Amino acid sequence: MTEAEFIAALRALPLHRGALDLRDDAARIGDLVLTTDMIAEGVHFLASDPPGDVAWKLVAVNLSDLAAKGAVPEGIMLGYPLGDEAWDAAFLDGLGAALTAFDCPLLGGDTIRTAGARTFAITAIGRAAVAPSRGGARIGDRLWVTGTIGDAGIGLAIAQGADGPAELLARYRRPVPRLAEGRALAPVATAMMDISDGLLIDAERMADASGCGVTIELGAVPLAPLHPGDRIAAVTAGDDYELLFALPDGVSPPVAATRIGRFAPEPGLRLTSAGAPFALPDRLGYQHG
Amino acid sequence: MTEAEFIAALRALPLHRGALDLRDDAARIGDLVLTTDMIAEGVHFLASDPPGDVAWKLVAVNLSDLAAKGAVPEGIMLGYPLGDEAWDAAFLDGLGAALTAFDCPLLGGDTIRTAGARTFAITAIGRAAVAPSRGGARIGDRLWVTGTIGDAGIGLAIAQGADGPAELLARYRRPVPRLAEGRALAPVATAMMDISDGLLIDAERMADASGCGVTIELGAVPLAPLHPGDRIAAVTAGDDYELLFALPDGVSPPVAATRIGRFAPEPGLRLTSAGAPFALPDRLGYQHG
Repeated sequence: MTEAEFIAALRALPLHRGALDLRDDAARIGDLVLTTDMIAEGVHFLASDPPGDVAWKLVAVNLSDLAAKGAVPEGIMLGYPLGDEAWDAAFLDGLGAALTAFDCPLLGGDTIRTAGARTFAITAIGRAAVAPSRGGARIGDRLWVTGTIGDAGIGLAIAQGADGPAELLARYRRPVPRLAEGRALAPVATAMMDISDGLLIDAERMADASGCGVTIELGAVPLAPLHPGDRIAAVTAGDDYELLFALPDGVSPPVAATRIGRFAPEPGLRLTSAGAPFALPDRLGYQHG
Repeated sequence: MTEAEFIAALRALPLHRGALDLRDDAARIGDLVLTTDMIAEGVHFLASDPPGDVAWKLVAVNLSDLAAKGAVPEGIMLGYPLGDEAWDAAFLDGLGAALTAFDCPLLGGDTIRTAGARTFAITAIGRAAVAPSRGGARIGDRLWVTGTIGDAGIGLAIAQGADGPAELLARYRRPVPRLAEGRALAPVATAMMDISDGLLIDAERMADASGCGVTIELGAVPLAPLHPGDRIAAVTAGDDYELLFALPDGVSPPVAATRIGRFAPEPGLRLTSAGAPFALPDRLGYQHG
Protein backbone atom coordinates (compact mmCIF):
# COMPACT_ATOMS: atom_id res chain seq x y z
CA MET A 1 0.00 0.00 0.00
CA THR A 2 1.05 3.59 -0.37
CA GLU A 3 1.29 5.70 2.76
CA ALA A 4 -1.89 7.56 1.77
CA GLU A 5 -3.81 4.28 1.26
CA PHE A 6 -2.58 2.93 4.58
CA ILE A 7 -3.57 6.08 6.47
CA ALA A 8 -6.96 6.09 4.75
CA ALA A 9 -7.46 2.49 5.93
CA LEU A 10 -6.40 3.44 9.47
CA ARG A 11 -9.23 6.00 9.50
CA ALA A 12 -11.71 3.10 9.45
CA LEU A 13 -10.31 1.81 12.78
CA PRO A 14 -11.30 3.11 16.23
CA LEU A 15 -9.67 6.56 16.45
CA HIS A 16 -8.97 8.67 19.53
CA ARG A 17 -10.59 12.10 19.46
CA GLY A 18 -7.09 13.53 19.81
CA ALA A 19 -6.00 11.70 16.64
CA LEU A 20 -7.70 14.57 14.76
CA ASP A 21 -8.77 12.06 12.09
CA LEU A 22 -5.05 11.42 11.40
CA ARG A 23 -4.97 14.67 9.41
CA ASP A 24 -2.56 16.54 11.66
CA ASP A 25 1.14 16.06 12.40
CA ALA A 26 0.64 15.31 16.08
CA ALA A 27 -1.99 13.83 18.39
CA ARG A 28 -3.43 15.45 21.49
CA ILE A 29 -4.29 14.21 24.98
CA GLY A 30 -5.42 17.25 26.95
CA ASP A 31 -2.57 19.76 26.72
CA LEU A 32 -0.10 17.04 25.70
CA VAL A 33 1.05 16.79 22.09
CA LEU A 34 2.36 13.42 20.87
CA THR A 35 4.29 12.55 17.72
CA THR A 36 6.08 9.42 16.47
CA ASP A 37 8.84 9.30 13.88
CA MET A 38 10.82 6.29 12.74
CA ILE A 39 14.07 6.34 10.78
CA ALA A 40 15.56 3.41 8.92
CA GLU A 41 19.13 2.76 7.84
CA GLY A 42 19.54 3.17 4.11
CA VAL A 43 16.36 5.21 3.82
CA HIS A 44 16.47 8.06 6.33
CA PHE A 45 20.16 7.94 7.12
CA LEU A 46 23.23 6.58 5.43
CA ALA A 47 25.02 3.55 6.88
CA SER A 48 28.12 5.74 6.76
CA ASP A 49 26.58 8.56 8.82
CA PRO A 50 28.22 9.01 12.21
CA PRO A 51 26.03 7.25 14.85
CA GLY A 52 25.97 10.36 17.04
CA ASP A 53 24.49 12.32 14.14
CA VAL A 54 21.86 9.61 13.58
CA ALA A 55 20.83 9.94 17.24
CA TRP A 56 20.76 13.74 17.04
CA LYS A 57 18.65 13.68 13.90
CA LEU A 58 16.21 11.12 15.31
CA VAL A 59 15.59 13.40 18.29
CA ALA A 60 15.54 16.55 16.17
CA VAL A 61 12.97 15.35 13.63
CA ASN A 62 10.60 14.37 16.42
CA LEU A 63 11.07 17.62 18.32
CA SER A 64 10.56 19.55 15.09
CA ASP A 65 7.01 18.18 15.01
CA LEU A 66 6.55 19.45 18.56
CA ALA A 67 8.01 22.84 17.55
CA ALA A 68 5.36 23.13 14.82
CA LYS A 69 2.73 22.74 17.54
CA GLY A 70 4.36 25.36 19.76
CA ALA A 71 4.95 22.64 22.33
CA VAL A 72 7.54 22.51 25.10
CA PRO A 73 9.22 19.07 25.03
CA GLU A 74 8.18 16.94 28.00
CA GLY A 75 10.20 13.85 27.10
CA ILE A 76 10.83 11.07 24.60
CA MET A 77 10.25 7.33 24.46
CA LEU A 78 13.07 5.62 22.50
CA GLY A 79 12.81 2.39 20.53
CA TYR A 80 16.36 1.18 19.97
CA PRO A 81 17.76 -1.85 18.11
CA LEU A 82 21.06 -2.71 19.78
CA GLY A 83 24.07 -2.81 17.46
CA ASP A 84 27.76 -3.23 18.03
CA GLU A 85 29.35 -1.67 21.08
CA ALA A 86 31.18 1.21 19.38
CA TRP A 87 28.10 2.19 17.37
CA ASP A 88 25.86 2.12 20.44
CA ALA A 89 28.33 4.20 22.46
CA ALA A 90 28.60 6.83 19.73
CA PHE A 91 24.81 6.88 19.37
CA LEU A 92 24.48 7.47 23.12
CA ASP A 93 26.89 10.43 22.89
CA GLY A 94 24.76 12.06 20.20
CA LEU A 95 21.56 11.23 22.04
CA GLY A 96 22.84 12.88 25.20
CA ALA A 97 24.01 15.92 23.26
CA ALA A 98 20.59 16.35 21.61
CA LEU A 99 18.59 15.83 24.80
CA THR A 100 20.76 18.40 26.55
CA ALA A 101 20.69 20.88 23.67
CA PHE A 102 16.91 20.72 23.37
CA ASP A 103 16.23 20.47 27.12
CA CYS A 104 14.25 17.28 26.61
CA PRO A 105 14.64 14.38 29.05
CA LEU A 106 14.36 10.68 28.32
CA LEU A 107 11.13 9.08 29.58
CA GLY A 108 11.63 5.44 28.67
CA GLY A 109 11.58 3.06 25.74
CA ASP A 110 12.54 -0.37 24.57
CA THR A 111 15.65 -2.08 23.22
CA ILE A 112 15.62 -5.06 20.87
CA ARG A 113 17.96 -7.14 18.75
CA THR A 114 17.37 -7.25 15.02
CA ALA A 115 19.14 -8.59 11.99
CA GLY A 116 20.10 -6.42 9.04
CA ALA A 117 19.23 -2.76 8.49
CA ARG A 118 18.08 -1.14 11.71
CA THR A 119 14.98 0.95 12.39
CA PHE A 120 14.78 3.47 15.23
CA ALA A 121 11.61 4.97 16.67
CA ILE A 122 10.91 7.89 18.94
CA THR A 123 7.63 9.06 20.38
CA ALA A 124 8.04 12.64 21.58
CA ILE A 125 5.65 14.18 24.06
CA GLY A 126 5.27 17.93 24.53
CA ARG A 127 2.98 20.35 26.25
CA ALA A 128 1.15 23.19 24.50
CA ALA A 129 -1.72 25.44 25.54
CA VAL A 130 -2.44 26.42 21.92
CA ALA A 131 -1.40 24.05 19.13
CA PRO A 132 -1.94 25.35 15.60
CA SER A 133 -2.94 22.81 12.96
CA ARG A 134 -1.48 22.65 9.48
CA GLY A 135 -4.95 23.36 8.07
CA GLY A 136 -5.95 26.74 9.50
CA ALA A 137 -4.65 29.13 6.83
CA ARG A 138 -7.24 31.53 5.37
CA ILE A 139 -7.41 33.17 1.98
CA GLY A 140 -5.37 36.35 2.12
CA ASP A 141 -3.03 35.05 4.86
CA ARG A 142 0.66 35.42 4.14
CA LEU A 143 3.03 32.44 4.08
CA TRP A 144 6.21 32.77 6.13
CA VAL A 145 9.23 30.61 6.80
CA THR A 146 11.95 30.62 9.46
CA GLY A 147 15.66 30.32 8.66
CA THR A 148 17.04 29.39 5.26
CA ILE A 149 15.79 26.77 2.81
CA GLY A 150 17.62 23.99 1.01
CA ASP A 151 20.71 23.83 3.21
CA ALA A 152 20.16 20.19 4.18
CA GLY A 153 19.74 19.22 0.53
CA ILE A 154 23.25 20.49 -0.17
CA GLY A 155 24.39 18.87 3.08
CA LEU A 156 23.09 15.49 1.90
CA ALA A 157 25.08 15.82 -1.33
CA ILE A 158 28.17 16.65 0.72
CA ALA A 159 27.54 13.61 2.96
CA GLN A 160 27.41 11.53 -0.23
CA GLY A 161 30.79 12.83 -1.40
CA ALA A 162 30.22 16.20 -3.08
CA ASP A 163 32.36 19.21 -2.19
CA GLY A 164 30.77 21.86 -0.03
CA PRO A 165 30.97 23.82 3.20
CA ALA A 166 30.87 22.07 6.58
CA GLU A 167 28.09 24.43 7.69
CA LEU A 168 25.66 22.92 5.17
CA LEU A 169 26.74 19.37 6.01
CA ALA A 170 25.95 20.19 9.64
CA ARG A 171 22.49 21.40 8.63
CA TYR A 172 21.83 17.93 7.19
CA ARG A 173 23.44 15.95 9.99
CA ARG A 174 22.49 18.00 13.06
CA PRO A 175 19.28 19.91 12.30
CA VAL A 176 17.99 22.16 15.08
CA PRO A 177 14.23 22.08 15.70
CA ARG A 178 12.75 25.58 15.96
CA LEU A 179 11.32 25.06 19.42
CA ALA A 180 11.54 28.64 20.73
CA GLU A 181 10.22 30.04 17.45
CA GLY A 182 7.34 27.57 17.46
CA ARG A 183 6.30 28.56 20.98
CA ALA A 184 6.36 32.26 20.05
CA LEU A 185 4.43 31.66 16.82
CA ALA A 186 1.75 29.27 18.09
CA PRO A 187 -0.57 31.97 19.51
CA VAL A 188 -0.50 34.06 16.30
CA ALA A 189 -0.07 31.57 13.42
CA THR A 190 -3.29 30.49 11.69
CA ALA A 191 -1.48 27.36 10.44
CA MET A 192 1.96 25.91 11.10
CA MET A 193 4.01 22.84 10.18
CA ASP A 194 7.65 21.93 9.90
CA ILE A 195 9.33 21.49 6.53
CA SER A 196 10.57 17.93 6.35
CA ASP A 197 9.91 16.86 2.76
CA GLY A 198 10.61 20.13 0.92
CA LEU A 199 9.22 23.66 0.96
CA LEU A 200 7.01 23.27 -2.11
CA ILE A 201 5.44 19.92 -1.23
CA ASP A 202 4.87 20.96 2.38
CA ALA A 203 3.39 24.34 1.39
CA GLU A 204 1.04 22.55 -0.99
CA ARG A 205 0.00 20.23 1.86
CA MET A 206 -0.69 23.22 4.11
CA ALA A 207 -2.83 24.87 1.42
CA ASP A 208 -4.71 21.60 0.72
CA ALA A 209 -5.38 21.06 4.42
CA SER A 210 -6.58 24.65 4.67
CA GLY A 211 -8.96 24.32 1.74
CA CYS A 212 -7.30 27.00 -0.35
CA GLY A 213 -4.29 27.54 -2.62
CA VAL A 214 -0.95 29.23 -2.14
CA THR A 215 1.39 31.25 -4.35
CA ILE A 216 5.10 31.37 -3.51
CA GLU A 217 7.52 33.97 -4.87
CA LEU A 218 10.67 32.03 -5.67
CA GLY A 219 12.87 35.12 -5.34
CA ALA A 220 11.66 35.68 -1.77
CA VAL A 221 12.73 32.25 -0.52
CA PRO A 222 15.64 32.79 1.88
CA LEU A 223 18.84 30.95 0.97
CA ALA A 224 21.92 30.64 3.13
CA PRO A 225 24.89 32.80 2.01
CA LEU A 226 26.83 29.55 1.46
CA HIS A 227 24.08 27.97 -0.65
CA PRO A 228 25.11 27.56 -4.31
CA GLY A 229 21.91 29.34 -5.34
CA ASP A 230 19.80 26.85 -7.32
CA ARG A 231 16.41 27.96 -6.02
CA ILE A 232 14.41 25.07 -7.51
CA ALA A 233 16.81 22.61 -5.89
CA ALA A 234 16.41 24.47 -2.60
CA VAL A 235 12.61 24.55 -2.52
CA THR A 236 12.30 20.85 -3.41
CA ALA A 237 14.96 19.53 -0.98
CA GLY A 238 13.96 17.81 2.25
CA ASP A 239 15.23 17.76 5.82
CA ASP A 240 15.16 21.54 6.43
CA TYR A 241 13.13 21.37 9.68
CA GLU A 242 12.33 25.05 9.42
CA LEU A 243 8.84 26.24 10.34
CA LEU A 244 6.33 27.11 7.65
CA PHE A 245 3.44 29.21 8.93
CA ALA A 246 0.55 31.44 7.95
CA LEU A 247 -0.18 34.85 9.43
CA PRO A 248 -3.03 37.22 8.66
CA ASP A 249 -2.02 39.98 6.25
CA GLY A 250 -0.44 42.84 8.18
CA VAL A 251 0.62 40.74 11.18
CA SER A 252 4.36 40.60 11.78
CA PRO A 253 5.87 37.43 13.25
CA PRO A 254 7.40 37.66 16.74
CA VAL A 255 10.53 35.83 15.50
CA ALA A 256 12.99 36.22 12.62
CA ALA A 257 11.23 34.94 9.50
CA THR A 258 10.75 35.67 5.80
CA ARG A 259 7.48 36.27 3.96
CA ILE A 260 7.44 34.12 0.84
CA GLY A 261 3.87 33.90 -0.38
CA ARG A 262 0.15 34.30 0.13
CA PHE A 263 -2.91 32.08 0.30
CA ALA A 264 -5.43 32.43 -2.53
CA PRO A 265 -8.89 31.09 -3.36
CA GLU A 266 -7.77 28.88 -6.27
CA PRO A 267 -6.69 25.45 -4.98
CA GLY A 268 -3.15 24.24 -5.50
CA LEU A 269 0.38 25.57 -5.47
CA ARG A 270 1.69 28.25 -7.80
CA LEU A 271 5.14 29.77 -8.18
CA THR A 272 6.14 33.24 -9.30
CA SER A 273 9.59 34.59 -10.06
CA ALA A 274 9.93 38.37 -9.78
CA GLY A 275 6.13 38.43 -9.80
CA ALA A 276 5.69 36.54 -13.09
CA PRO A 277 4.18 33.04 -13.18
CA PHE A 278 6.88 30.35 -13.06
CA ALA A 279 6.39 26.69 -14.01
CA LEU A 280 6.28 24.20 -11.12
CA PRO A 281 9.02 21.57 -11.17
CA ASP A 282 7.88 17.96 -11.79
CA ARG A 283 8.98 16.96 -8.31
CA LEU A 284 7.85 19.17 -5.43
CA GLY A 285 9.81 17.34 -2.73
CA TYR A 286 10.23 13.99 -1.06
CA GLN A 287 7.19 11.80 -1.70
CA HIS A 288 6.58 8.98 0.74
CA GLY A 289 5.90 5.48 -0.62
CA MET B 1 26.35 -3.56 24.18
CA THR B 2 24.00 -5.73 26.15
CA GLU B 3 20.56 -4.37 26.99
CA ALA B 4 21.63 -3.92 30.63
CA GLU B 5 24.77 -1.98 29.62
CA PHE B 6 22.77 0.21 27.26
CA ILE B 7 20.14 1.01 29.89
CA ALA B 8 22.86 1.74 32.44
CA ALA B 9 24.42 4.19 29.96
CA LEU B 10 21.01 5.81 29.34
CA ARG B 11 20.82 6.55 33.08
CA ALA B 12 23.71 9.00 32.63
CA LEU B 13 21.57 11.07 30.21
CA PRO B 14 18.98 13.69 31.21
CA LEU B 15 16.08 11.64 32.60
CA HIS B 16 12.47 12.71 33.15
CA ARG B 17 11.29 12.35 36.75
CA GLY B 18 8.58 10.04 35.39
CA ALA B 19 11.24 7.79 33.86
CA LEU B 20 11.61 6.36 37.41
CA ASP B 21 15.34 5.96 36.73
CA LEU B 22 14.45 3.52 33.91
CA ARG B 23 13.85 0.85 36.55
CA ASP B 24 10.13 0.40 35.94
CA ASP B 25 8.18 -1.05 33.01
CA ALA B 26 6.39 2.20 32.17
CA ALA B 27 6.95 5.94 32.45
CA ARG B 28 4.62 8.45 34.08
CA ILE B 29 3.43 11.94 33.15
CA GLY B 30 0.88 12.92 35.77
CA ASP B 31 -1.77 10.18 35.74
CA LEU B 32 -0.66 8.99 32.31
CA VAL B 33 1.36 5.78 31.96
CA LEU B 34 3.51 5.35 28.84
CA THR B 35 5.22 2.26 27.47
CA THR B 36 7.04 1.46 24.21
CA ASP B 37 7.53 -2.00 22.71
CA MET B 38 9.13 -2.88 19.40
CA ILE B 39 8.89 -6.20 17.61
CA ALA B 40 11.12 -7.34 14.78
CA GLU B 41 10.56 -9.97 12.11
CA GLY B 42 12.63 -13.09 12.75
CA VAL B 43 13.13 -12.17 16.40
CA HIS B 44 9.74 -11.46 17.99
CA PHE B 45 7.56 -12.99 15.33
CA LEU B 46 8.04 -15.51 12.57
CA ALA B 47 7.99 -14.41 8.94
CA SER B 48 5.33 -17.11 8.49
CA ASP B 49 3.06 -15.72 11.24
CA PRO B 50 -0.24 -14.37 9.90
CA PRO B 51 0.06 -10.54 9.63
CA GLY B 52 -3.17 -10.06 11.56
CA ASP B 53 -1.70 -12.02 14.46
CA VAL B 54 1.48 -9.90 14.34
CA ALA B 55 -0.67 -6.76 14.65
CA TRP B 56 -2.71 -8.24 17.48
CA LYS B 57 0.40 -9.28 19.38
CA LEU B 58 2.09 -5.90 18.91
CA VAL B 59 -0.94 -4.20 20.47
CA ALA B 60 -1.34 -6.87 23.15
CA VAL B 61 2.25 -6.78 24.41
CA ASN B 62 2.08 -3.01 24.82
CA LEU B 63 -1.31 -3.10 26.55
CA SER B 64 -0.03 -5.86 28.82
CA ASP B 65 2.48 -3.34 30.21
CA LEU B 66 -0.42 -0.95 30.84
CA ALA B 67 -2.38 -3.77 32.49
CA ALA B 68 0.49 -4.32 34.92
CA LYS B 69 0.13 -0.66 35.94
CA GLY B 70 -3.63 -0.97 36.39
CA ALA B 71 -4.03 1.56 33.57
CA VAL B 72 -7.01 2.11 31.30
CA PRO B 73 -5.75 2.34 27.69
CA GLU B 74 -5.99 5.87 26.33
CA GLY B 75 -4.54 5.17 22.88
CA ILE B 76 -1.55 3.99 20.88
CA MET B 77 0.99 5.59 18.56
CA LEU B 78 1.97 3.15 15.78
CA GLY B 79 5.29 3.06 13.93
CA TYR B 80 4.70 1.02 10.78
CA PRO B 81 7.04 -0.03 7.96
CA LEU B 82 4.89 -0.43 4.85
CA GLY B 83 5.09 -3.83 3.17
CA ASP B 84 3.22 -5.42 0.31
CA GLU B 85 -0.45 -4.71 -0.12
CA ALA B 86 -1.85 -8.05 1.05
CA TRP B 87 0.37 -8.09 4.14
CA ASP B 88 -0.60 -4.51 5.05
CA ALA B 89 -4.31 -5.24 4.59
CA ALA B 90 -4.14 -8.34 6.79
CA PHE B 91 -2.17 -6.42 9.40
CA LEU B 92 -4.86 -3.71 9.42
CA ASP B 93 -7.54 -6.36 10.02
CA GLY B 94 -5.70 -7.66 13.07
CA LEU B 95 -4.95 -4.16 14.29
CA GLY B 96 -8.61 -3.22 14.09
CA ALA B 97 -9.64 -6.42 15.86
CA ALA B 98 -7.20 -5.79 18.71
CA LEU B 99 -8.09 -2.11 19.13
CA THR B 100 -11.77 -3.03 19.26
CA ALA B 101 -11.25 -6.00 21.59
CA PHE B 102 -9.19 -3.94 24.06
CA ASP B 103 -11.22 -0.74 23.68
CA CYS B 104 -8.10 1.21 22.76
CA PRO B 105 -8.23 3.81 19.99
CA LEU B 106 -5.45 4.79 17.60
CA LEU B 107 -3.86 8.17 18.38
CA GLY B 108 -1.37 8.54 15.54
CA GLY B 109 2.00 7.32 14.37
CA ASP B 110 4.33 7.15 11.42
CA THR B 111 4.77 4.99 8.33
CA ILE B 112 8.08 4.40 6.60
CA ARG B 113 9.62 2.25 3.88
CA THR B 114 12.46 -0.04 4.85
CA ALA B 115 14.54 -2.73 3.22
CA GLY B 116 14.89 -6.17 4.77
CA ALA B 117 13.40 -7.42 8.02
CA ARG B 118 10.76 -5.07 9.34
CA THR B 119 10.52 -3.56 12.81
CA PHE B 120 7.24 -2.32 14.31
CA ALA B 121 6.90 0.01 17.26
CA ILE B 122 4.01 1.00 19.47
CA THR B 123 3.92 3.53 22.26
CA ALA B 124 0.84 2.86 24.38
CA ILE B 125 -0.59 5.50 26.68
CA GLY B 126 -2.91 4.69 29.58
CA ARG B 127 -4.38 6.39 32.57
CA ALA B 128 -4.01 5.15 36.14
CA ALA B 129 -4.68 6.74 39.51
CA VAL B 130 -2.51 4.19 41.31
CA ALA B 131 0.24 2.42 39.36
CA PRO B 132 2.09 -0.31 41.28
CA SER B 133 5.79 -0.73 40.53
CA ARG B 134 7.53 -4.06 40.05
CA GLY B 135 9.66 -3.31 43.10
CA GLY B 136 7.23 -2.92 46.00
CA ALA B 137 7.00 -6.48 47.30
CA ARG B 138 7.79 -6.92 51.00
CA ILE B 139 9.17 -9.89 52.90
CA GLY B 140 6.26 -12.13 53.82
CA ASP B 141 4.11 -11.03 50.87
CA ARG B 142 2.65 -13.83 48.80
CA LEU B 143 3.32 -14.17 45.07
CA TRP B 144 0.28 -14.64 42.83
CA VAL B 145 -0.32 -15.14 39.14
CA THR B 146 -3.37 -14.80 36.90
CA GLY B 147 -4.39 -17.42 34.35
CA THR B 148 -2.23 -20.37 33.33
CA ILE B 149 1.49 -20.47 32.68
CA GLY B 150 3.46 -21.81 29.72
CA ASP B 151 0.65 -21.95 27.19
CA ALA B 152 2.38 -19.61 24.75
CA GLY B 153 5.57 -21.65 24.92
CA ILE B 154 3.65 -24.68 23.65
CA GLY B 155 1.90 -22.39 21.15
CA LEU B 156 5.24 -21.26 19.76
CA ALA B 157 6.28 -24.89 19.22
CA ILE B 158 2.98 -25.51 17.42
CA ALA B 159 3.55 -22.41 15.25
CA GLN B 160 6.95 -23.89 14.37
CA GLY B 161 5.39 -27.18 13.26
CA ALA B 162 4.82 -29.30 16.37
CA ASP B 163 1.48 -30.99 16.99
CA GLY B 164 -0.76 -29.47 19.62
CA PRO B 165 -4.13 -27.93 20.36
CA ALA B 166 -5.33 -24.78 18.59
CA GLU B 167 -6.13 -23.21 21.97
CA LEU B 168 -2.45 -23.09 22.91
CA LEU B 169 -1.44 -21.81 19.47
CA ALA B 170 -3.97 -19.00 19.98
CA ARG B 171 -2.38 -18.15 23.34
CA TYR B 172 0.92 -17.56 21.48
CA ARG B 173 -0.55 -15.74 18.51
CA ARG B 174 -3.35 -13.72 20.12
CA PRO B 175 -2.46 -13.08 23.77
CA VAL B 176 -5.01 -11.14 25.78
CA PRO B 177 -3.63 -8.47 28.12
CA ARG B 178 -5.14 -8.70 31.60
CA LEU B 179 -6.48 -5.16 31.60
CA ALA B 180 -9.52 -5.64 33.83
CA GLU B 181 -7.54 -7.76 36.28
CA GLY B 182 -4.77 -5.16 36.40
CA ARG B 183 -7.20 -2.37 37.22
CA ALA B 184 -8.76 -4.43 40.03
CA LEU B 185 -5.37 -5.44 41.42
CA ALA B 186 -3.57 -2.08 41.24
CA PRO B 187 -4.99 -0.70 44.51
CA VAL B 188 -4.11 -3.80 46.53
CA ALA B 189 -0.94 -5.25 44.93
CA THR B 190 2.33 -4.24 46.57
CA ALA B 191 4.14 -5.07 43.31
CA MET B 192 2.94 -6.06 39.85
CA MET B 193 4.38 -6.81 36.40
CA ASP B 194 3.40 -8.79 33.36
CA ILE B 195 5.12 -12.07 32.52
CA SER B 196 6.72 -11.63 29.13
CA ASP B 197 10.04 -13.46 29.39
CA GLY B 198 9.04 -16.40 31.60
CA LEU B 199 7.60 -16.84 35.09
CA LEU B 200 10.92 -17.64 36.79
CA ILE B 201 12.99 -14.87 35.26
CA ASP B 202 10.26 -12.29 35.78
CA ALA B 203 9.65 -13.38 39.39
CA GLU B 204 13.37 -13.10 40.04
CA ARG B 205 13.31 -9.57 38.58
CA MET B 206 10.39 -8.63 40.84
CA ALA B 207 12.23 -9.93 43.90
CA ASP B 208 15.47 -8.17 42.90
CA ALA B 209 13.64 -4.88 42.33
CA SER B 210 11.94 -5.31 45.70
CA GLY B 211 15.19 -5.94 47.54
CA CYS B 212 14.26 -9.40 48.73
CA GLY B 213 14.05 -12.97 47.52
CA VAL B 214 11.20 -15.20 46.44
CA THR B 215 10.39 -18.91 46.72
CA ILE B 216 8.04 -20.51 44.20
CA GLU B 217 6.30 -23.85 44.71
CA LEU B 218 6.48 -25.58 41.34
CA GLY B 219 3.42 -27.72 42.06
CA ALA B 220 1.29 -24.63 42.66
CA VAL B 221 1.98 -23.09 39.26
CA PRO B 222 -1.30 -23.26 37.31
CA LEU B 223 -1.13 -25.10 34.00
CA ALA B 224 -3.83 -25.21 31.35
CA PRO B 225 -5.73 -28.53 31.14
CA LEU B 226 -4.38 -28.87 27.58
CA HIS B 227 -0.77 -28.25 28.62
CA PRO B 228 1.42 -31.36 28.24
CA GLY B 229 2.57 -30.90 31.83
CA ASP B 230 6.32 -30.19 31.78
CA ARG B 231 6.39 -27.67 34.62
CA ILE B 232 9.99 -26.55 34.09
CA ALA B 233 9.23 -25.85 30.42
CA ALA B 234 6.13 -23.92 31.50
CA VAL B 235 7.83 -21.67 34.07
CA THR B 236 10.71 -20.79 31.72
CA ALA B 237 8.63 -20.09 28.60
CA GLY B 238 7.96 -16.53 27.46
CA ASP B 239 5.00 -14.65 25.99
CA ASP B 240 2.44 -15.55 28.67
CA TYR B 241 1.31 -11.94 29.35
CA GLU B 242 -0.27 -13.01 32.61
CA LEU B 243 0.04 -10.74 35.64
CA LEU B 244 2.50 -11.56 38.40
CA PHE B 245 1.78 -9.72 41.63
CA ALA B 246 2.49 -9.55 45.33
CA LEU B 247 -0.15 -9.29 48.05
CA PRO B 248 0.33 -9.05 51.80
CA ASP B 249 -0.15 -12.39 53.55
CA GLY B 250 -3.83 -12.97 54.24
CA VAL B 251 -5.08 -10.63 51.51
CA SER B 252 -7.16 -12.32 48.81
CA PRO B 253 -7.00 -10.99 45.25
CA PRO B 254 -10.17 -9.42 43.81
CA VAL B 255 -9.75 -11.48 40.62
CA ALA B 256 -9.21 -15.14 39.76
CA ALA B 257 -5.56 -15.91 40.50
CA THR B 258 -3.31 -18.59 41.98
CA ARG B 259 -0.91 -18.24 44.91
CA ILE B 260 2.45 -19.70 43.90
CA GLY B 261 5.05 -18.42 46.32
CA ARG B 262 6.22 -16.05 49.01
CA PHE B 263 8.82 -13.33 49.40
CA ALA B 264 11.67 -14.04 51.79
CA PRO B 265 14.60 -12.14 53.28
CA GLU B 266 17.33 -14.10 51.40
CA PRO B 267 17.96 -12.55 47.97
CA GLY B 268 17.34 -14.56 44.82
CA LEU B 269 14.90 -17.07 43.45
CA ARG B 270 14.29 -20.52 44.93
CA LEU B 271 12.05 -23.35 43.80
CA THR B 272 10.31 -25.99 45.83
CA SER B 273 8.42 -29.06 44.65
CA ALA B 274 5.90 -30.45 47.12
CA GLY B 275 7.62 -28.27 49.68
CA ALA B 276 11.12 -29.71 49.17
CA PRO B 277 13.94 -27.64 47.64
CA PHE B 278 14.15 -28.12 43.88
CA ALA B 279 17.14 -27.19 41.69
CA LEU B 280 16.71 -24.12 39.48
CA PRO B 281 16.99 -24.78 35.73
CA ASP B 282 20.04 -23.27 34.00
CA ARG B 283 17.81 -21.01 31.92
CA LEU B 284 15.11 -19.07 33.81
CA GLY B 285 13.47 -17.55 30.73
CA TYR B 286 14.10 -15.36 27.74
CA GLN B 287 17.24 -13.26 28.28
CA HIS B 288 17.54 -10.10 26.19
CA GLY B 289 20.82 -9.43 24.37
